[in-house]
Amino acid sequence: MTERTSRCSHPLDALFYPRSLAVVGVSKNTDSQGFTYLRQHLEFPFQGPVYPVGLEAEEVLGVRCYKRILDISGPVDHVISCIPQHQLPPLLEDCILKGVRSLHLFTARLAETQVEERINLENRIIHRAREAGVRIIGPNCLGLYNPGAGLTFRFSLPKERGSIGYISQSGGYASDLEYQGAGRGLRFSKIVSFGNAADLNESDFLEYMIEDPNTKVIAMYLEGVKQGRRFLDNLKRSDGTKPVILFKGGKSRAGSRAVATHTASMSGEAALWEALCRQFGVINVGSMQEMADVLLAFQYLRPSSGERVWIIGGGGGGSVAAADTFEMEGFEVPPLPDSMREKVKAFAPEVWSMISNPMDPSVMGDNGTMTRALEMGAEWDGVDMVVGDSSATWYLDSPEAAGQHEANLRVLLNIAGQVRKPMAIVTTAGDTTSPWRVEALHKAREKCREKGVPTYPNIQRAARALAHFAGYHRRIKALHVHQHRRQK
Amino acid sequence: MTERTSRCSHPLDALFYPRSLAVVGVSKNTDSQGFTYLRQHLEFPFQGPVYPVGLEAEEVLGVRCYKRILDISGPVDHVISCIPQHQLPPLLEDCILKGVRSLHLFTARLAETQVEERINLENRIIHRAREAGVRIIGPNCLGLYNPGAGLTFRFSLPKERGSIGYISQSGGYASDLEYQGAGRGLRFSKIVSFGNAADLNESDFLEYMIEDPNTKVIAMYLEGVKQGRRFLDNLKRSDGTKPVILFKGGKSRAGSRAVATHTASMSGEAALWEALCRQFGVINVGSMQEMADVLLAFQYLRPSSGERVWIIGGGGGGSVAAADTFEMEGFEVPPLPDSMREKVKAFAPEVWSMISNPMDPSVMGDNGTMTRALEMGAEWDGVDMVVGDSSATWYLDSPEAAGQHEANLRVLLNIAGQVRKPMAIVTTAGDTTSPWRVEALHKAREKCREKGVPTYPNIQRAARALAHFAGYHRRIKALHVHQHRRQK
Repeated sequence: MTERTSRCSHPLDALFYPRSLAVVGVSKNTDSQGFTYLRQHLEFPFQGPVYPVGLEAEEVLGVRCYKRILDISGPVDHVISCIPQHQLPPLLEDCILKGVRSLHLFTARLAETQVEERINLENRIIHRAREAGVRIIGPNCLGLYNPGAGLTFRFSLPKERGSIGYISQSGGYASDLEYQGAGRGLRFSKIVSFGNAADLNESDFLEYMIEDPNTKVIAMYLEGVKQGRRFLDNLKRSDGTKPVILFKGGKSRAGSRAVATHTASMSGEAALWEALCRQFGVINVGSMQEMADVLLAFQYLRPSSGERVWIIGGGGGGSVAAADTFEMEGFEVPPLPDSMREKVKAFAPEVWSMISNPMDPSVMGDNGTMTRALEMGAEWDGVDMVVGDSSATWYLDSPEAAGQHEANLRVLLNIAGQVRKPMAIVTTAGDTTSPWRVEALHKAREKCREKGVPTYPNIQRAARALAHFAGYHRRIKALHVHQHRRQK
Repeated sequence: MTERTSRCSHPLDALFYPRSLAVVGVSKNTDSQGFTYLRQHLEFPFQGPVYPVGLEAEEVLGVRCYKRILDISGPVDHVISCIPQHQLPPLLEDCILKGVRSLHLFTARLAETQVEERINLENRIIHRAREAGVRIIGPNCLGLYNPGAGLTFRFSLPKERGSIGYISQSGGYASDLEYQGAGRGLRFSKIVSFGNAADLNESDFLEYMIEDPNTKVIAMYLEGVKQGRRFLDNLKRSDGTKPVILFKGGKSRAGSRAVATHTASMSGEAALWEALCRQFGVINVGSMQEMADVLLAFQYLRPSSGERVWIIGGGGGGSVAAADTFEMEGFEVPPLPDSMREKVKAFAPEVWSMISNPMDPSVMGDNGTMTRALEMGAEWDGVDMVVGDSSATWYLDSPEAAGQHEANLRVLLNIAGQVRKPMAIVTTAGDTTSPWRVEALHKAREKCREKGVPTYPNIQRAARALAHFAGYHRRIKALHVHQHRRQK
């Protein structure tokens, strides 16, 4: 169960791999956050002892409940605080006495209220914690998720480990990525929701994710940056090492105002962030959906070698839209050369005239020569990527017709399993109310996930995600060529 | 059942309101298109007699099957052809003899194959039909849907009548709009899929939709235009009369190539189409999802008076993203003035400090003063539109938490029912695989549909749709002011 890190320990490993934890502010009230954190860690389960601390109950969920942290006999590495902000100073003193290493403050209504007294209280707590060597996560945040240690903050977060390290200033968005992507297969090494960033901030966590051997791709939702210089240094360190995908909130005037009340951050200007992303090869996305979409490509696909794409399926109008969309996102959708068409003609005289790019076979599946033609197209060295478009909704006109939807997907998944190029599959969004359609879509998505093929709910989202992905690899290749030239 | 048009009959009324129809190419093969058209019209049901025509069967689905159209004793207004292209000339002669008014050619593999012999065959058929006064729809298309007459081409198209007239060159996309929007409430007056447009083209149908009293909003998916001058004249006629929403396929080089093989059209350049849309106030969209989203606003909302928006909900990160997104789409998200905050403070001393724009109440629902504050904000004359954002996914962390999701939606729907401004609700996309989450979302979407509130699966799509909608009304207002000045 316990995950071992294959390197000299990073100081923040203590946070992500605590040996024991206490939840402070636990009662029998099942709606309370203290109860919820306790239940989440008992169920996940957390790898070591979990101690509830609360004034009212003798036991909660069958576990003995302590009045104070100091009453616990064993060591306590990590504490989750769900008590009101004015009770924090004595809790912190108890943590110091107990030798606690990290204190996560779910507790909110501090600096983000913009009330002077609350700002001062937050400052006092951070000052005292730093003096005593206790690291603070938050306040006003959900804290830590690490499936390798059994740490969590949502029931819905997957138990399986993954390779995405996700840093989110917002608690809601810290959970949202699971919603947007876990059904399609996204899995995480660590997630941290760090709120007001009064002690540990975005740079601490970015630095950690860059060094964490279990993290291959880094995702960030930020509203502001506490240490500008340090943040830039870390982005520079990430460049060429691990892909970083950033969703920056608060780029507009109204958004900046919202940020101030949300996590008490100062947010900057859109143009500045764009320039910064370009400089360090950071992928700049505009929504959580787009972030999930990009991460899916990085998690599943082998590196792309270029931006020429072959598109299969989509129906008449759909294949036109697919060509338009991919070209607008910077891809080339090259026509199939005559030599290629001649090759196909030799074994598929009935279908060769339909082989094009995009290619819209009205029926995939049982037709053996069509399938062989599709496979040949995918292997064609004139394209670097393949997109299988199974989003045509007319196969979902009636439950009887849904079989063809399944058959098409089977053909596309077979090609994805064989072709040695990045390949994504477009399915359809669940914007429907027919239960049988929803079920058909779920089955399709599940099959893609099982085979490790990234799937997107429409062609626009697929094209955007793959454009980010291909752009990243183009940049990496250019960096390597550049370095190679300098070494010579 | 029969719908009467409240004006002098338009020549194309004969197509959309036939008294009887024949499906040619019917067999007992349930996978065949002939069988499918027959079943669809018997089930919808079509308002008059439906005659199957086919060589093999004596009866299909309990209805006597005729060998030739000429064998039918009663009159036949409309014929749907599902036979191979080389059998068309004798069928057309029979239609002429029988006095058929319109012939819909589902039959394909004609000009779109780009094979000379097929192009010539298509031309010969059109020439003969025009000579004899038979109008042709297609070839290579799904034909007509009119719930007011019982005409249809998909099982999934709604039986209820609506006010959207939809013209689609593509058959797949003719059906797709139902998929993208019917679950959220979209209903249609007429849909036509017209394929190669060899006889009746986009201008005929646009002209018809402009005059049709049952059509209030016009949607179009086009790949090319047959009669440029006439098309522009019709767009001009529509301007200021009925909103026109256009999705143009084949704007890129690869897309244009795909168009040629799909419906044998010539497609033009992106910039040209954009200029044309600006000139005539046509709303230019980039996907079928965007088209459904815009139509939903036009179907449900009262006209907008401006572009100042108040945003409720969304969670911390979500409300920041909402502000960013709406501002980027050209909206103003004005801060609430002190006078307004003072008013709220008077009756809601506990929550007044949280009242802002965007406004992120952590919990809506049972708190009476919060609800009253939300209602007051919605009525505030500093905003023209209201957006209720119920897309925060943390309420969908566990089945127990989903109750809060429902409670929030209830509060938002109550506000939508009271406020005399356009209001939309953002729910969450179904990109999840948990059945209980999907069910919660469906319930939410159903409730919005029942109350006639447009709902969007994310804040980006809501902002884009409302921007098109508000922009249309801004332009209409300007046109009226302009006309008024000229009249003085």
